[in-house]
Amino acid sequence: MNSSEYEYLDKINSPSDLKKLSIEELNILCEEIRDKLIKTVSKNGGHLSPNLGTVELTVAMHYVYNTPNDKIVWDVGHQSYTHKILTGRKDRLDTIRKKGGLSGFPKRSESPYDAFNVGHSSTSISAAYGIARARAIKGEKGRTIAVIGDGALTGGLAYEGLNNAGRSNKNFTVILNDNKMSISRNVGSIAKYLTHIRIRPGYIKIKKIVEKILIHTPVIGNPLRKLLLHSKSKLRISVYRNTIFEDLGFVYYGPVDGHDIGKLIDALNASKNVNQAVIIHVVTTKGKGYHFAEEDPRSYHGISSFDIESGEPISSKKGFSARFGEILCDIAKKDKRICAITAAMKLGTGLAKFSHDYKERFFDVGIAEEHAVTFAAGLATENMIPVFAVYSSFLQRAYDQIIHDAAAQEIHMVLAIDRAGIVGEDGETHQGVFDVAMLSSIPNVTIYSPCYFDELGDAMNKAIYKHSGIVAIRYPRGGQPYRPNDYKTGEVYSVYGTGKDAVIVTYGRIFANASNAKEILEEKGKKITILKLNRIHPISKEAVKICSEFKRVYFFEEGMENGGVGDKFRCMLDDEGYTGSYELTAIKDKFVPQSTVDEALSELCLDCAGIVNKLTWN
Amino acid sequence: MNSSEYEYLDKINSPSDLKKLSIEELNILCEEIRDKLIKTVSKNGGHLSPNLGTVELTVAMHYVYNTPNDKIVWDVGHQSYTHKILTGRKDRLDTIRKKGGLSGFPKRSESPYDAFNVGHSSTSISAAYGIARARAIKGEKGRTIAVIGDGALTGGLAYEGLNNAGRSNKNFTVILNDNKMSISRNVGSIAKYLTHIRIRPGYIKIKKIVEKILIHTPVIGNPLRKLLLHSKSKLRISVYRNTIFEDLGFVYYGPVDGHDIGKLIDALNASKNVNQAVIIHVVTTKGKGYHFAEEDPRSYHGISSFDIESGEPISSKKGFSARFGEILCDIAKKDKRICAITAAMKLGTGLAKFSHDYKERFFDVGIAEEHAVTFAAGLATENMIPVFAVYSSFLQRAYDQIIHDAAAQEIHMVLAIDRAGIVGEDGETHQGVFDVAMLSSIPNVTIYSPCYFDELGDAMNKAIYKHSGIVAIRYPRGGQPYRPNDYKTGEVYSVYGTGKDAVIVTYGRIFANASNAKEILEEKGKKITILKLNRIHPISKEAVKICSEFKRVYFFEEGMENGGVGDKFRCMLDDEGYTGSYELTAIKDKFVPQSTVDEALSELCLDCAGIVNKLTWN
Repeated sequence: MNSSEYEYLDKINSPSDLKKLSIEELNILCEEIRDKLIKTVSKNGGHLSPNLGTVELTVAMHYVYNTPNDKIVWDVGHQSYTHKILTGRKDRLDTIRKKGGLSGFPKRSESPYDAFNVGHSSTSISAAYGIARARAIKGEKGRTIAVIGDGALTGGLAYEGLNNAGRSNKNFTVILNDNKMSISRNVGSIAKYLTHIRIRPGYIKIKKIVEKILIHTPVIGNPLRKLLLHSKSKLRISVYRNTIFEDLGFVYYGPVDGHDIGKLIDALNASKNVNQAVIIHVVTTKGKGYHFAEEDPRSYHGISSFDIESGEPISSKKGFSARFGEILCDIAKKDKRICAITAAMKLGTGLAKFSHDYKERFFDVGIAEEHAVTFAAGLATENMIPVFAVYSSFLQRAYDQIIHDAAAQEIHMVLAIDRAGIVGEDGETHQGVFDVAMLSSIPNVTIYSPCYFDELGDAMNKAIYKHSGIVAIRYPRGGQPYRPNDYKTGEVYSVYGTGKDAVIVTYGRIFANASNAKEILEEKGKKITILKLNRIHPISKEAVKICSEFKRVYFFEEGMENGGVGDKFRCMLDDEGYTGSYELTAIKDKFVPQSTVDEALSELCLDCAGIVNKLTWN
Repeated sequence: MNSSEYEYLDKINSPSDLKKLSIEELNILCEEIRDKLIKTVSKNGGHLSPNLGTVELTVAMHYVYNTPNDKIVWDVGHQSYTHKILTGRKDRLDTIRKKGGLSGFPKRSESPYDAFNVGHSSTSISAAYGIARARAIKGEKGRTIAVIGDGALTGGLAYEGLNNAGRSNKNFTVILNDNKMSISRNVGSIAKYLTHIRIRPGYIKIKKIVEKILIHTPVIGNPLRKLLLHSKSKLRISVYRNTIFEDLGFVYYGPVDGHDIGKLIDALNASKNVNQAVIIHVVTTKGKGYHFAEEDPRSYHGISSFDIESGEPISSKKGFSARFGEILCDIAKKDKRICAITAAMKLGTGLAKFSHDYKERFFDVGIAEEHAVTFAAGLATENMIPVFAVYSSFLQRAYDQIIHDAAAQEIHMVLAIDRAGIVGEDGETHQGVFDVAMLSSIPNVTIYSPCYFDELGDAMNKAIYKHSGIVAIRYPRGGQPYRPNDYKTGEVYSVYGTGKDAVIVTYGRIFANASNAKEILEEKGKKITILKLNRIHPISKEAVKICSEFKRVYFFEEGMENGGVGDKFRCMLDDEGYTGSYELTAIKDKFVPQSTVDEALSELCLDCAGIVNKLTWN
């Protein structure tokens, strides 16, 4: 069916349209939404499994709650496509994740239905509770609802939020979307605990029977009877304590079948009468309704465009993540001190094989970047060599742990920073553009920025065997860029070309664009040298000296200008008495919005054309 | 009694000496240790209440465990003085927190008994679990023990650690030191929950009776009997689930009286036989044994030197924290949008009066800086104006939340950054030297750095009413420094003096040192102007232009050089075509160890003499 063929969806322009439908009709609507989701994501890429899993839940929420006056805060936000469809954005869904299009995450500037911007995990309870408290102060009515997955519940921030919000008498609801997964299979005690409360069907029944006994205090076995008479309240504590959530001061409802619209609506309606913090435990199936995704939800969590019939991705190319995993396995084979750590990103960071081959030395710690670094520091004090593979933007979570638990006690660990630089379609929240500034101000840190797989391998060997302290290796999403035939990697920096008119200084994959620009510029008669920094922090004095011989230095940086390499390089050039011109092209004081990587680099003048345009002297 | 009069303590040179003593003798030893603690802290300042509360626990641990082969990781580490006394450092205790002396926190470089460096909260479980897993990989024996307070348990990192470590079959013990306090009274659901399990004395008894019933399945009331026969396992779930810690996969012991050496030793010994992750819940009294501290543990948590007889501090001076609190109350009186947030630092950040006068708008969220920022962002989306008062080094915890939850969605909030710059005796982990670098790379951030109370007030008014986005105001520990009579504050920067030979650029309290240096330099015939930046980010172009007129620019910065203001200022001077000399004095790539603030500033050439010495041209 195509868009104009959706019997019900075509008529839904806002949540109020939902409320006219019967349960049966809502079920058909859900199937139509699923169809639209699969078609859209197969073209645009995006988060498929999380969205397929929450269709009924989202429909039920907008059916029961009075949005946008009732505020929904989505955790991570990758499951908000149905929410966007239902709140007046269905006709623009085909623009999702594209430049200028709908965001793949909730965004306040996009719709009054989006209560809070998201992208990273575990923020929803804190944000929603802030909203709820503000409305209480203002004396405003309306519910605030946080929707959080069981994966996000492994993050410490979620717990801090629960701890603060529990026992609140404010109008505050947490919906736990329990799909037994983070991006990969969920790990840790809380995951096992949720399994435990999911699988006890007798739970509510038992509770009710025991309740009856207590109320009617019938004649029962002597010791227990005595106990009941003398200390009813004490026994109640043991019998009635049911879930962690109740311990933390929430009223608990659940578990509820997250694909049964009728039951969902009943549960949400029932919870509305409780004037206290409530948690509703909803059990969903990630990838529901698309058999490839249901069978392998991990692979369809966040994906590029794919063929609907076969489930196969349209294109694929070996990326840095995969190569990183291979190299690490090779090293770990010979060296039993090597440990690999991931924060729920085993597949994304290329650690699947490592986790299989070196089970004892592989640690998936949950969505817990802070813990990952402190745990790694603990390993390191016992002479292990921990390698924490993590996306750049998520490493931001561990800034204090890097300073306090690693750098300050001179711990030797490797940070394998994946998705460094522009990541594209995920937009502002996922761009890996802060890590260099973040890490450069911390003592005892070395940073490498390879452009090619051999440089990645070289950096990993140096990081593990030549350095002490923290060594970060940052590499981009995707695969290797263009490599000039005559390019040879240097030790700490690489000098490419012999032109004397100007030197381009850069690092990471921008070197490929610079080398293309160099060719074009030389056709125009401008003789260029490129100085590529392999180690970007600390900056090699020798590299600076080489550049100080030029009249013109152009620095191109795929990262924030403030605190970045370009400014530091300039100060070091000054120290060498440099008197020529210096121009830095980096990310000025702003966030980089969603688009393709190429579009973003073009916008930032970091693509070939941008570099050519910057070198404009006559 | 003086040092040579301690009957038992004088003979304790290592934990093995402890093991020769009887329980009665250990009790006397504890009193001797208390005496030594009170005398030492009354002279050196330090953390009194936490140490007084853990004397028996520490003695019992070293009595039972085989340290240093068994590894103890102290959370925060401010309670480790008794540990230091027992592990060969008692004769150097009088050097604690002094330059070159013992650290006020555990430090691996100080002793093999110190398993992990600490200072910030909630790291112990993660670190200890890392150590435990490393030893398991290596096949080494020995226990690993994390000692964590109930306050530290409100931090998300601790929960991430519990989630990862629970259900581990490794030799891993968590001792929960439950004193019902963070630094102030502990807040949040977990605190209330601990109260709940503390006050049920019948708990173990009930459990045993019910157990008996289940084992013997006597004839009891029909419905319950049927239930027991048909679904024994299901009822067990309800009856036997006891604590959150068991839900998270730990074996739970407790609560144990933390001042009863005999019971402590029994509990620790019993736990040694469990080859599983164990949590031992120990209840202690903060400040135990010094009546002033017992009655008011908050005031004696971390203190300066004091008079033992009267309990009065030796000196006190109105500090920036107190003035901040007063100003905020004044603003909040007129403006109902103002909210104040603290992460368990109500007293330290000067918010006691606010918490009393504006209860509904005051939020102590626990030791949870991440949540504090995201929660504040939630408040702000509802048009409240949140002010998060936080120590500089603890704000590091919230780096990602500042980027992701506040800056990226253009939230207006104020970060009141206390203890910015050198803090002195607490050493490396507490120096507030990273905040400027951390915040400068983030878009939508403005930073003020007042030197005097009037400038603080001015910055607060601007932050709340003139700016959008995130506004940080950073001010030092302690009170106002020297102020020249003829100093007048400017709007964005202040120009002090008219000398043409050189300009000193600086910010914050270093201005006082610079103005003293100016006098001395002018006596030597050097004519100086001082340009003091009031707003340090973004840097005023006008201020840069003024400086570009000078032949010599000297920048003094009490913060990290990399990513700091000085490097950026230099780049901006370059943009103005500046050709004179530039010298930046800031904190190079290293951590600043403990000493007095004055000693540290002298070491860093940021005191008057250091500034004079830097301006050495002829």
